[in-house]
Amino acid sequence: MLLPAAAAPPRRRGRTLQEALREAVRSGRLAAGTRLPSSRALAADLGVSRGLVTDAYDQLTAEGYLRSSRGAGTWVGDAVRAPGAGAGPTPAAVGVRTGAEPAGTPAAGGTRTVAEPAPGAPVVRVDFTPGTPDLSLFPRAAWAAAHRTVLSRLPHAALGYPDPRGLPELRAALAALLTRRRGVVAAPERVVVCSGVAQAMTLLGFVLRGRGLRTVGVEDPGSPEHGTLFASAGLRAVGLPLDGEGLAPGPLVASGVRAVVTTPAHQFPSGIACSPRRRTELLDWARTVDGYLIEDDYDGDFRYDRAPVGALQGLDPARVVYTGSVSKSLAPGLRLGWMVVPEPLLEEVVDRKRTMDLGNPSLDQAVLAEVVTAGGYDRQLRRCQRAYRRRRDALVTALAEFLPGTRVSGIAAGLHVIARVPGRHGPEGAFLARAAAAGVVVRPLSGYGTAAARDGGDVPLVLGYAHLSPSDIALGVRRMAGA
Amino acid sequence: MLLPAAAAPPRRRGRTLQEALREAVRSGRLAAGTRLPSSRALAADLGVSRGLVTDAYDQLTAEGYLRSSRGAGTWVGDAVRAPGAGAGPTPAAVGVRTGAEPAGTPAAGGTRTVAEPAPGAPVVRVDFTPGTPDLSLFPRAAWAAAHRTVLSRLPHAALGYPDPRGLPELRAALAALLTRRRGVVAAPERVVVCSGVAQAMTLLGFVLRGRGLRTVGVEDPGSPEHGTLFASAGLRAVGLPLDGEGLAPGPLVASGVRAVVTTPAHQFPSGIACSPRRRTELLDWARTVDGYLIEDDYDGDFRYDRAPVGALQGLDPARVVYTGSVSKSLAPGLRLGWMVVPEPLLEEVVDRKRTMDLGNPSLDQAVLAEVVTAGGYDRQLRRCQRAYRRRRDALVTALAEFLPGTRVSGIAAGLHVIARVPGRHGPEGAFLARAAAAGVVVRPLSGYGTAAARDGGDVPLVLGYAHLSPSDIALGVRRMAGA
Repeated sequence: MLLPAAAAPPRRRGRTLQEALREAVRSGRLAAGTRLPSSRALAADLGVSRGLVTDAYDQLTAEGYLRSSRGAGTWVGDAVRAPGAGAGPTPAAVGVRTGAEPAGTPAAGGTRTVAEPAPGAPVVRVDFTPGTPDLSLFPRAAWAAAHRTVLSRLPHAALGYPDPRGLPELRAALAALLTRRRGVVAAPERVVVCSGVAQAMTLLGFVLRGRGLRTVGVEDPGSPEHGTLFASAGLRAVGLPLDGEGLAPGPLVASGVRAVVTTPAHQFPSGIACSPRRRTELLDWARTVDGYLIEDDYDGDFRYDRAPVGALQGLDPARVVYTGSVSKSLAPGLRLGWMVVPEPLLEEVVDRKRTMDLGNPSLDQAVLAEVVTAGGYDRQLRRCQRAYRRRRDALVTALAEFLPGTRVSGIAAGLHVIARVPGRHGPEGAFLARAAAAGVVVRPLSGYGTAAARDGGDVPLVLGYAHLSPSDIALGVRRMAGA
Repeated sequence: MLLPAAAAPPRRRGRTLQEALREAVRSGRLAAGTRLPSSRALAADLGVSRGLVTDAYDQLTAEGYLRSSRGAGTWVGDAVRAPGAGAGPTPAAVGVRTGAEPAGTPAAGGTRTVAEPAPGAPVVRVDFTPGTPDLSLFPRAAWAAAHRTVLSRLPHAALGYPDPRGLPELRAALAALLTRRRGVVAAPERVVVCSGVAQAMTLLGFVLRGRGLRTVGVEDPGSPEHGTLFASAGLRAVGLPLDGEGLAPGPLVASGVRAVVTTPAHQFPSGIACSPRRRTELLDWARTVDGYLIEDDYDGDFRYDRAPVGALQGLDPARVVYTGSVSKSLAPGLRLGWMVVPEPLLEEVVDRKRTMDLGNPSLDQAVLAEVVTAGGYDRQLRRCQRAYRRRRDALVTALAEFLPGTRVSGIAAGLHVIARVPGRHGPEGAFLARAAAAGVVVRPLSGYGTAAARDGGDVPLVLGYAHLSPSDIALGVRRMAGA
């Protein structure tokens, strides 16, 4: 599970873009007669929807700032008395500078072209921070169509207080999906819909705390969020090291924990796929201590070169709590996820879900059920898989070209890789600082735990690529190398 | 806050209606040639959307069970060999009997016309249980249109991990709305979007527990849910009695609690409006004990004959946590609500919200912001207000006609009244049992606490009317009286 380390910064409305354009025209930075890019091009540059740009253009045309004609496009009108007539920044740069996409958000990386940065502030051009998919791949048209279908069919009663376990049709659709795609053993009665993997962890934290547990194991290196979430339920997270096959069994046994979170399909962040032997050892451990493995299948849907590795849960559904979400496949903003819960924990999990929020919103659940049942979810996964494979290839190619000698691992699946940059590029701190000065944000493996091996002076980086275009990826690596 | 006492029962899909119709044709209960009601009429009868009925008709026409032609409507075809040709129940009855709306749900009352009930099972005809609005008033078309607008405009970045405080544009829209409609002092920075009032209580429970509180006051009589929600956060609920002006100050002071939940606009369930003097006394108490009043403004938007009573929060925003939701104005299934939080509690509330679910779904928030900003929310409140006033009038009229001598209170606002039925109709238990046998579900005031006064043998009932049509209301009261 990859979660933002802090709140996403405030987002602004289409109005911000309008205001930025209006101000640019008023101040003369956009001179009369300046031709604006097409709405499609500007939307792509700003990473916003085309409708937002079209609205802004329409509004400002109505207000007299802009003029447009069919075929001739849109240009700056002469109704406004401009104090100057310099070429000024492009509208794209205006939009960005006034906040169309805040640069350097903790969670979401991306490429930013910033005009006139504040003095001293580094210009973020490429942000390799992992954790967010490419939000432009969200299937807006399909989602809107499913919403329309659902709203036209939904019985009135379905708008009442929800079932805290989740909408029955969604639970049935998810059970079938997870069985088919991930080898999960999932009867609908054991599926609990929740607000993503983060809530699954919090729910389980409370349930395990209620059963007397005071600690829970987490992978080290791993997602720092796990510890925060369990702490909110009164559990202390105990970091447990990995070896080449996954979570190391010796320290796990010695730790005395009776529940551990693990990412067996593609360990975050190391990228290790838990070996078959290790899977057996972990399940043996869980049976011995009468404990639970909590499987965070955060990117199990994305695999490129090898056959899919089924979920750990399929091997022993009584000892594994399976968790997943649409945050990587559709959008984190939907806040929709699921758990498949062993029978003994089920009632407590549902009770806790009920007191936490009474259940997930019904309409959203019905829309997802429709999308899954009608095959749209599989299509979306194929689409993302194609896009992300290309980006991974672009990253591996760029690293080989611009940072030769870099060892790359964890590339068979997921949305990020580990890249070990040769020590000759300098010690970690200096390397990261130079990259930042060149406008490239990269996270070191050491930022994800205490146990990150340094491999004889190499600098191990966690590079998320799913949210970046192939050309941005190449640009980012080139700048990192040139720094 | 009115919440269901248990999970809503599973809902079924349009397929259920199709199966019921198919089975009715196969069994001959719907004979060949039988003309079916229009999709509009059947949808209204079943309380489902018209699209669901149209889909069922289309599907069965495609399958040969039904035939239709433009202008001539839909009728039962002769492709199926019918074992008999009796008139049988109407399709409406078939649909209901197979579960088109589960009867007697804990939260949602309503009218059910049931054909061939199971032997011994009472036939629920009218359910006066309060807590759910009329779900057929949900503005489906407006909501779908706003959803379309929002999806066409939303920047990609808005689909990423949400701001745990809520979408900035929704917080701004809510601050303006609550200030204008409810006299709340609400800067957007102090608004926290949450999954309804239930989650607000749980969030506050954890925050107060974290500050060392071990108890929280709740009104008695009051919503039994409050106690459950606070218990989930480790707080014990202390029931506090009312007098004619609201929460009684003496027992409050004596209880030693430092936080109390109250429903000042229209106490649930008594209907008492907290007097101006009592408001001052409660705020004085909060200042003296350095405590908080938690205002559950669950039906403050619905008032009929008198001028609106502003929120308690407006009198001292530093001592009152204001909570509300769309559960009564739009639909509980949306799981969207809000809190206005005093500055000292704000950061802890947001931190807790973040670990609980990272924040509410972004799209839903953007849709509500659009609906509020464009005036649709005010229109919806006016529409509900008109409908609910008519229903309240129908209830008061029916009580006067069929149960003369009944004293009705709490009628100036909200979605329910208190009706004190004269003792000559028998003791409470017998009265309720007879009503149930006559197919009328009513909740006694005594079901909402330990302190319900019996008023010299009268039977005090809590009658929710918002979800019932005026004719259902009259039917229910007549049956109750005749029982």
